[in-house]
Formats: sequence, structure tokens, C-alpha cells
Amino acid sequence: MDVGRGFGGKHLLGIEGLQPFEIAAVLDRADGFVDLNRRNDKKLSILKGLTHINLFFEASTRTQTSFELAGKRLGADVVNMSMANSSMKKGETLIDTAMTLNAMHPDVLVVRHQDSGAVALLARHVRCAVINAGDGTHEHPTQALLDALTIRRRKGRIEGLTVAICGDILHSRVARSNIHLLLAMGARVRIVAPPTLLAAGLEDFGVEVYTDMTRGLAGVDIVMMLRLQVERMQGSFVPSLAEYFHLFGLTYDKLRAARSDALIMHPGPMNRGVEIDGVVADDIDRSAILDQVEMGVAVRMACLDILTESLRGADA
Amino acid sequence: MDVGRGFGGKHLLGIEGLQPFEIAAVLDRADGFVDLNRRNDKKLSILKGLTHINLFFEASTRTQTSFELAGKRLGADVVNMSMANSSMKKGETLIDTAMTLNAMHPDVLVVRHQDSGAVALLARHVRCAVINAGDGTHEHPTQALLDALTIRRRKGRIEGLTVAICGDILHSRVARSNIHLLLAMGARVRIVAPPTLLAAGLEDFGVEVYTDMTRGLAGVDIVMMLRLQVERMQGSFVPSLAEYFHLFGLTYDKLRAARSDALIMHPGPMNRGVEIDGVVADDIDRSAILDQVEMGVAVRMACLDILTESLRGADA
Amino acid sequence: MDVGRGFGGKHLLGIEGLQPFEIAAVLDRADGFVDLNRRNDKKLSILKGLTHINLFFEASTRTQTSFELAGKRLGADVVNMSMANSSMKKGETLIDTAMTLNAMHPDVLVVRHQDSGAVALLARHVRCAVINAGDGTHEHPTQALLDALTIRRRKGRIEGLTVAICGDILHSRVARSNIHLLLAMGARVRIVAPPTLLAAGLEDFGVEVYTDMTRGLAGVDIVMMLRLQVERMQGSFVPSLAEYFHLFGLTYDKLRAARSDALIMHPGPMNRGVEIDGVVADDIDRSAILDQVEMGVAVRMACLDILTESLRGADA
Repeated sequence: MDVGRGFGGKHLLGIEGLQPFEIAAVLDRADGFVDLNRRNDKKLSILKGLTHINLFFEASTRTQTSFELAGKRLGADVVNMSMANSSMKKGETLIDTAMTLNAMHPDVLVVRHQDSGAVALLARHVRCAVINAGDGTHEHPTQALLDALTIRRRKGRIEGLTVAICGDILHSRVARSNIHLLLAMGARVRIVAPPTLLAAGLEDFGVEVYTDMTRGLAGVDIVMMLRLQVERMQGSFVPSLAEYFHLFGLTYDKLRAARSDALIMHPGPMNRGVEIDGVVADDIDRSAILDQVEMGVAVRMACLDILTESLRGADA
Repeated sequence: MDVGRGFGGKHLLGIEGLQPFEIAAVLDRADGFVDLNRRNDKKLSILKGLTHINLFFEASTRTQTSFELAGKRLGADVVNMSMANSSMKKGETLIDTAMTLNAMHPDVLVVRHQDSGAVALLARHVRCAVINAGDGTHEHPTQALLDALTIRRRKGRIEGLTVAICGDILHSRVARSNIHLLLAMGARVRIVAPPTLLAAGLEDFGVEVYTDMTRGLAGVDIVMMLRLQVERMQGSFVPSLAEYFHLFGLTYDKLRAARSDALIMHPGPMNRGVEIDGVVADDIDRSAILDQVEMGVAVRMACLDILTESLRGADA
Repeated sequence: MDVGRGFGGKHLLGIEGLQPFEIAAVLDRADGFVDLNRRNDKKLSILKGLTHINLFFEASTRTQTSFELAGKRLGADVVNMSMANSSMKKGETLIDTAMTLNAMHPDVLVVRHQDSGAVALLARHVRCAVINAGDGTHEHPTQALLDALTIRRRKGRIEGLTVAICGDILHSRVARSNIHLLLAMGARVRIVAPPTLLAAGLEDFGVEVYTDMTRGLAGVDIVMMLRLQVERMQGSFVPSLAEYFHLFGLTYDKLRAARSDALIMHPGPMNRGVEIDGVVADDIDRSAILDQVEMGVAVRMACLDILTESLRGADA
């Protein structure tokens, strides 16, 4: 089976190519872990004896911790490798790093890399399961899965909903993974962004593109805000933050265009007052931002569980 | 119950406000862990299934390791989050960080932060127990507790002893926590420091203030030296190290003023030849500096044990 | 017994002074762990309840991970202390760091330090077992042991083989440890290096010295390449990389001088196109470079196992 194409293979490299039943299987599995994480005793031994390595070429305290908690709560031995300042990163090719790690017999590698496609390249040189924790502007599949779980639990379904993904589309692997997932699960997707932060060819995916928030949010069920990634804007137009907030920041005023029960989402970390007004982010009834964090641990447990299923039980 | 006021609440944010019986309870509990740590098999399963996160906004290899050992030896899953260089620190408010972590369902957060009051602020936004591992110049409660355990084991009691806390009082959360604890437990406290490194209003606490070592050490049972924190001395007078040692560094000469069996303490890491003469620090009979490190792990185990007591046994 | 002289003492500080039966004992023990690491369930409880601390004053993601995996797979509690940027490193003497850690009751310390002799100095101030994970240009004993295990498994023996160690001998603790081990086990050792990268007095060890690759590799069984450590070449001649590759880089052309079944080794990370041609490194039949990485985890497990043997079973 095609490596890199979801759970049909042994890796989770992206949402693109996953079948709806595969996505639903992850979400169903994750539902059970949500309850576990709310208990005092959160420890299982499903992954006991297995080695889970977090290999982060790009630092991300939040995502790394979410994966580390997921692995440890399932009973794996978890090892963090911070490659951002490692000499290994400088002196060695990515393929050599992959083959070196492979020789240490990990069972799961969770990899974040600043270059699109790097995780898939690495995955071709290891025997174990690889989870993409974000590669360049390509994909961030567990983010889309946790967003889907959040939506399904709050709205009861994904199919038939209208979701507006708003903001810095151009630099966003989160947007890309969410577009694939939401379309696969039967949602309608709108993109709302300033022209300079739009990616080319979005209409070809089957999404509607807007450059005005009020029109883009009209009647939507879900408002998914993106982090403005100023740090990635080399060579492109960097907007003034005040102007960006005025035109594209989510406020109650702009939100009036959406359905009255529209859910507010953000992958975090938030720039309050830039892409989202603080009072909207803190709206107890409508903001699902903290739900997303909670679902993140559960979804990552589900991915680890599913990808290591074949390793358990039978030892030669 | 008042959050932030010791074990009456569910956090340990400071020594101020703790009752003597609460302090004694920690020390009694810690006594048992001292013996455990001296065994080969140091592993208990008291905290099995619980998640302990070390959240250090200010790097401290020594304190973080002490807490990590404490959590692991009690059987918790321990996760370190180094926030000193994290993008999370930069892009996100402290309250957002608190709420984000809270959504991952930790059971204990151990937090160090460069700003006084930051740990208490964070504690108000999480459901789990929080231990202050040092906040700005405010408090460092586990340091005072380990100092108390050291004194109690070496001297048999705390009540009625005279303790001199010497050196850089102005920048010292260690001094502040120790003053609260020692006074609560019935010791007499003297502060000995150069006028430029004294904090205002110390007499109001009920301590005696000296600016001369020989007079300050006269007849004391305990000499507690502080680290000279040159790194915190922005805007204040930075003394010449040689002059500082001459006037305030602990030498055998100055120590003659104290009781002949006076105990020598230092929270570490030491600047030998600055606040303490190396030969005094290494005095096998009278220096308790390494005892303090050993008691540190035991006291932190006791705090983790007590704060998670209500979580054990009953799961809904 | 002499601390620092192998397993006769309780430390592994270097290969120098180890007896052949001690080396063979490590390799025999490691053989069993190779099989364990290839299983899905890799977890033993041999070191359960013991504390293993990785204390790295010099960052090394690869070696630290290898030790961390070894400790965790044996069931120890493993704690990483990154000292490279720690204030502990700056403000404190090495002996104070040693005594401080000792007071926390670790059972094994794995130490890497930029200065030759620092690990032995530290070992004299702790009660627990110490493993040298590389000190300056002195020794890196587990690297030599993993190289020996690789050779023994691929060639069936070490005795009687001729091994050429090639490249930057001057800065190489790997070369030094390997020379001691290979001579102790009855191999013949040749050193092949440019005159500016040779260490003085090598002939006194009983090795043959060459400054020409073709003559140095003539008829050898093992070609062990070293990493060119440009970062250590302060004050010595830094060769042009193209010229270095031309004269000393391992190519198929130069390799023709060796036996047709000669094994190719490299401690990693590799500078492809500098000390070794990429196609030679990737030679499936003759390159043992990834075997070395795999043997590394097994050898480290063996060292941890042997050094903690006396701690198990009997608790006072």
C-alpha cells in the first residue's frame, strides 16, 4: 500500500488521500481516550515495551508535549530529540538521520520539520511508523483530526456543515490538512483571506474563496481562525497588525454574519488582538479553542494506538 | 479555601500563610522519603497514572531535576516543558498558556517564572495542583521546606533556634520563604546584609537586621548564606566581588562569632570565594549544604504526595 | 580497586586498562540485547527502581538518545540534564556539580564533557557508577565497545584482524579508545592520517603509522573512518575539504587496496564527500555503519546492566 497515504500504509503523513472511513475510525477511537484523560488514573499499558521518539527539527513546545503525554499515557517509552539546535541536523543529511534513528529500533517516530515533504522523505528510510507533526506549509494531519473531533462532538456531525477557514492561508499547513479532511467528510469549505495571503489554485480543491470577512462568514456553522505567521513571511507582504485586525480579525461585529450558534476555533497559540479579539476567544458558549487542545491529546493517542496495532501481541 | 495559601488550598504557592502543623506535616512525610531515596530500589507507585508537568519559564537544571526525580520515583508520568526559549512564551499570554495546559489534564504543575506573582496568576486558571518552584523575588517554598527539614534533622528542632540569613536579601525569594517558615516554626531570624542589598520593611516581619557579619552571627545556631545574584542586579549597586567577600563572605574567621556547633547552609549553586570560603563550604562536620540537596528531593516528593492525595483511589 | 580502570572498579571511564575478559564479557552481554531490541516488546525491568542520569556538558543528540533508550528499555528512571547552556555549568565548579548530583542519589551517571579527564574527576566525587560518554580528546569507551561488537558479529572474531583507523586522529577520542581495545583483543592496528592530524607517540602504543591511504589500507580487514572535526581544530591547520577528500576520503578507488571483504565503519555523524564517499558509505554488503548504531544501544544496555549488578536484589 502507498506509503504516505494515511492508515492504509503504516504512516500518517497527511490527510490527503485518507478515506472517510479511516478518518472516522480515528475519531471513534479518540472518543474513548477523551474520557480516559479526564480520569485521575490516565495510564494504560497498550504501548508498553514500544519506543516512541519525538523528532522535532522545528521547536514546538505545545505540540511536542501533546504527543509526549499521548505516548506516556499509553505506556510507551517516549524520548524527545530536539533537533532545532542539534549538530546532527547540521552535519548530516536527513536520510542519514532517518537511517541512524531506524537502527535504534523505534516503533513510532513523530516528526516535525520546517520543509514541506521532509517527513515523507524520512518515512521512506525507516521501518517504523511515522506521524507527521507538521512539515513546512504542507500538512499537519493530527491538527485536522483534532479539529474534526472537536466539531463532531460539539455539532454532532461534520457532513453538511459550512466551515470558514480564515486568515493566513498561504503559510498554513493547518488550513491545507483541514481542507482535505472537511471535504472528505462532506463539509462545505470557505476560505477567507487577504489576496496576498491566499494560496494559488484553491478553487481547484472545491472550496469557495472570499477576501471579505462579512461575506465569507455569512451563514457559516464553524469559524476557524488561523494564526498570522509573521515569522514565515519572507518576501511576501507583511501587513500592519492593526490593519490586519481591522479587516480580518474575528470580532463579535464580524461574527454576526455567521449562524448564531457558530463555533469559534483556533489552532493556537493565539495572537490576541491580531487574528482574534480576546473577548471572542474567551466566549464560553461559542469558543471551542480549549476543546481543541483537549481533543489533541486524545486524537494523538488514537493515532499512536492504530499505527502500532500490528506490533502488539505477536513477538517472534 | 483560599487558593495560594498553602495546603489548605490545593496549591503550594508560598510559605506565607501556612500553619505550623501544615509545615510539620510536610517535614514528617518527607522524612520517610529520605530513607527511600537512600535505597537501591527507589520506586513507588503512589502517583501512578498521574501527569506531572515541569513548566520552567526560567531555566534551572538543578531544581528541575530535583522535581523530576521526585515525580518519577513516586511513579508519575513526568513531562518537562522548557519555556525559556519557547515560542509559546513569546506569542501567548500567561493565562492562555495556563488554560492550554489545563486542557491537557495534568495533575500537578511545577512552575518557575521570572516574575513575582506569575505562578499564583497561572494557578487561578487551572484545575490541577500547582507548586511554585520560584517566582521572581517572591517565594520559593520548597527551598524553605528543605532547609527546615535539614535543620530539624541536624538540630532535632527548629523552635528556639537563632538563624542568620546572610547576603543578597534584596533579590532572594529563598530568604523571603525562609523568613516566613522560620518565624512560623518559632525560630528567631536575623538578616545580615550590606545596606544596598537589604529589602525594605524587614523589621516589620519580626526579624533583626544587621549590616555587620560578626555582630550578626554572634551566638547563632544556623548560618544560612545566600547566593550573590549578580544577574538580577539591574539598576542597583553591583559590589566588587573581592570587597563583598571581604565584608560578607563566610570565613572561619567570621564564623567564630557563631556557636561552635553552628550549622552552615547554602541553597546552591555556590560562588566559592564570593559569598562563602571554599574550606568552610567543605567542612564535613558543620556544612549541611549537601544535606540540603538530598532533603530537596524528599521534600518535593512529600509535596507531590500531599497535593495529589485527593486524586487517588476514587475514579468516577 | 582502581577507580577508572574499567569494570574492576565500579565505573567505565575508558578502555585503557580493561582486561580482554572484561571486554569480552560486555560484548557477550550485549549480544543478548541486540535480539531484544529487534523485538516489538523491548522492555525489561532489570533496572527498575534505579535512577540513570545523562549529564551532557557537550550536546550530543545521537549519543544521549542511545543511552536514554538503553536505560529506559532496561526499566530505569532516566533523567536528562543538558548542561551545555546551564547556569549550573557556569556558576559552579565541576566538583560541586558532582557532589550536588550525588546527594540526589542517582545510581548511574552517564557523562559527556568537553575536557579530557573531567569525567574521571567527577567520578571521584560520587558514590554511584559513572560511564564516560566522551571526554575531550581522551576516551569514548562505549564507542569502542560497539565497534568491537560490530566487528565480532560481522567477522566472527577480533583477534588477528588488521584494522586501519583513518583520518583526524589528533582530535579523536574514538580513535584512542579503539586503539586500546583492538590491541587488547589481539588485532593489529594501523593509523592512516595526514601528518598534521597525527597524535604524537602513536608508535609507542604498538600501532603502525601511515600517511598514505593506499599503503595504509593494503590488505586490511577493517577500514574505520573518522569524522573530520573541523570544530576542534583551533590553532592547527584546517585542510581544504576538497583536498582532504582527494587524499584521505574513502572511495572505491582507495578501497581496492584493502581485502575484498573489508568492512567499512564510521562512528557518525558522517560528512559525506569529506571523509567518505557517499556510495561507499551506502554499500549494502560492506558498510557496517548502521550496524554500529544498532550495536550502540545494545552495548550501552550491557554496560548499564553490568555496572548496576551489585545494586540489585539486596536492599538494606
